[in-house]
Amino acid sequence: MKSSILTIGDEILIGQIVDTNSAWLGKKLTELGIPVNEIISLADTKESIKKSIENAMLKSDLILLTGGLGPTKDDVTKAAIAEFLNVGTYFDENLYNKISQYFIKRNLPISKYVKIQSTIPETAQLLTNNVGTAPGMLFKKDNKVIISMPGVPHEMKWIFKNSIIPILPQLGKIENNIYQRTIKTIGIGETRIAAKIEDITDTFPEDISLAFLPSSGQVRLRVMSSSQNDNTVHVDKFVNQISSRLGDYVYGYDSVIIEDALKDLFISKNLTLSTAESCTGGYLSHRITSVPGSSKYYIGSLIAYDNHIKESQLNVQSETLLNHGAVSEATVIEMLSGLLNKTGTDIGIAISGIAGPNGGTPDKPVGTIWVAYGTLENYKTKKLTLFKERLRNIHYTATAGMNLLRLFVLNNT
Amino acid sequence: MKSSILTIGDEILIGQIVDTNSAWLGKKLTELGIPVNEIISLADTKESIKKSIENAMLKSDLILLTGGLGPTKDDVTKAAIAEFLNVGTYFDENLYNKISQYFIKRNLPISKYVKIQSTIPETAQLLTNNVGTAPGMLFKKDNKVIISMPGVPHEMKWIFKNSIIPILPQLGKIENNIYQRTIKTIGIGETRIAAKIEDITDTFPEDISLAFLPSSGQVRLRVMSSSQNDNTVHVDKFVNQISSRLGDYVYGYDSVIIEDALKDLFISKNLTLSTAESCTGGYLSHRITSVPGSSKYYIGSLIAYDNHIKESQLNVQSETLLNHGAVSEATVIEMLSGLLNKTGTDIGIAISGIAGPNGGTPDKPVGTIWVAYGTLENYKTKKLTLFKERLRNIHYTATAGMNLLRLFVLNNT
Repeated sequence: MKSSILTIGDEILIGQIVDTNSAWLGKKLTELGIPVNEIISLADTKESIKKSIENAMLKSDLILLTGGLGPTKDDVTKAAIAEFLNVGTYFDENLYNKISQYFIKRNLPISKYVKIQSTIPETAQLLTNNVGTAPGMLFKKDNKVIISMPGVPHEMKWIFKNSIIPILPQLGKIENNIYQRTIKTIGIGETRIAAKIEDITDTFPEDISLAFLPSSGQVRLRVMSSSQNDNTVHVDKFVNQISSRLGDYVYGYDSVIIEDALKDLFISKNLTLSTAESCTGGYLSHRITSVPGSSKYYIGSLIAYDNHIKESQLNVQSETLLNHGAVSEATVIEMLSGLLNKTGTDIGIAISGIAGPNGGTPDKPVGTIWVAYGTLENYKTKKLTLFKERLRNIHYTATAGMNLLRLFVLNNT
Repeated sequence: MKSSILTIGDEILIGQIVDTNSAWLGKKLTELGIPVNEIISLADTKESIKKSIENAMLKSDLILLTGGLGPTKDDVTKAAIAEFLNVGTYFDENLYNKISQYFIKRNLPISKYVKIQSTIPETAQLLTNNVGTAPGMLFKKDNKVIISMPGVPHEMKWIFKNSIIPILPQLGKIENNIYQRTIKTIGIGETRIAAKIEDITDTFPEDISLAFLPSSGQVRLRVMSSSQNDNTVHVDKFVNQISSRLGDYVYGYDSVIIEDALKDLFISKNLTLSTAESCTGGYLSHRITSVPGSSKYYIGSLIAYDNHIKESQLNVQSETLLNHGAVSEATVIEMLSGLLNKTGTDIGIAISGIAGPNGGTPDKPVGTIWVAYGTLENYKTKKLTLFKERLRNIHYTATAGMNLLRLFVLNNT
């Protein structure tokens, strides 16, 4: 069984939203052993939906559609599917009662749109949606399966997990011969990695592939086998070889993210952490607390966006700000000691920089970021010279900050 | 001139990365008056690339490819294009020297991969890339234009803006008849909006469309005309009618985001803001500071992730935490007054809740969030009852928090 993912909506084509549904579905289908042939985003017109389903059926056995199931006028997926299958639509009273309950529970009026949502193509097999009003729908034609889901991400995910995964084995033969591992690296670029591991990758057999996936300060290395052979052992062997070569640049594998790696390291060493952020404005703190369990080591942060707060809350001396500026080694050192004195954590990190787009000078252009990190007695500093774009600077600095903390704990505690 | 966007890479199909390039390109092309017919993500094999270019040429005049131009083994786009066009490749010495300079400037060794990157299809017209090593490439065939760009987002964007937009008018006829406006609403759902404005949307002519784009606490309403007629006046008229009906739910238009609206409102009233966050862990502060100029009204934040910090830094009484719990109306009220006393800002907001997935109780399930906001003399509180998913709770709460602040300033200052 191979699949195509069709995401429907002009908002995707005109770039008003980023389509995250297809990435989520691609990941799940791959894990389930159902290769994804293609992801197509198309306009919400009946013609383009019908044409795209027809094309997808030429290469795939399972066609997954998201979007266009809402009650409003731009939602034409149901009508398009009915036309494609050459069937009529009918008013489903059970569905009407179920959707009505959803509104009654929330003390919302039952509008006429509930009736529209309860009108569905004749051959639809309904797929339960417990977190929204539009159910999923399953159709069969010429031994192929077409499934339509709402475009709202958490509804789509709920339906896929609860109403589709359990019936997948009945829908077609799952080959299940995709095996992949991902090595997570940080602090080294793609080209340098490629040169370092070239002699290993040269020995890869034809049916094992390596992909480099760079993003903001990190590179993921995906080793994948999708042949008929069981290549589990070979893939694992290459993963081990590459990891040994790359040493501390590797922080984890597969679904582990740097936030997890940092948390596990701090907890395993029984250390606590606090942060003082200026230019990153809370983004480092957000990244750290985005994973469950971070409260076991992370205490909190002082976001000193304004210089007065740097003085009043972190005890940065006004002479330091005057003589060296808010973006300086001297300032981040004082921010760090002020932070550690205040929070009492074992380890801290302080960041001050010019995120941009304004505020740069010839001496300190946009993208100049100072970081101090460590303990009261043993701290280090680092100057980052980054980019012109504000959000890119914020994202990269948070990632680099987590890596500096990781290396500090690895080498100094 | 109509376009297709092809994003190349197994990492997209298996969901390892979210394809943001196509959304960015879709937005730019739409703004430039070049409709996007489809966005296709495909595997990085020569066969699928060749087949997809061939299919795209059936419907579009401009085919934009991203990805697969790196120096490593999984990068096959150049070879696929050369085979599709039936031309050879050659080593471009000028390009080699240019890429080498890139490495020399950064004190990096020139590896053999530079030679691979300097080998290009014979008929390629090179498109300058000043922020990376792989240039863009332009090809012509059968009156259609094929453009290949690297997949690294900031390189793709640089090439599109600097090396493609200036030559677009020479590549085909741009119709320029897309006109769209977007109304940004917050704090009201899609179904309620639809019911409120139904009598207005019923009067829309055929060639003007309305789309509802819901996302985490917000709904964007896009009014679009893409007919041959000049519908500017009609679109603007409907936008005004809908906005009047929705009142305070509307915070802005088009590219304005809630972060901008909040900033403009605070600055126009000459007010300052600080925040105290527990469960949102800095995400609200990040959202506020993600837009340039936020330092003009935003002072900083106390991220009191740990209860001890709530006591020591925000002066929350230990009896309050003991009697009511950290997630309670009493605690957020004390957090707010502690914050305002400390930072001296005009207005503040304090948040404490259970983001999940753990930490819930029957009384206070995961998704229970308390918010206090306002001034020392005049504050309000609100309890949010949200979701089971950690990040969804964090994102929704930050958005809701910004809206509570916006409404407070609108109605109380």
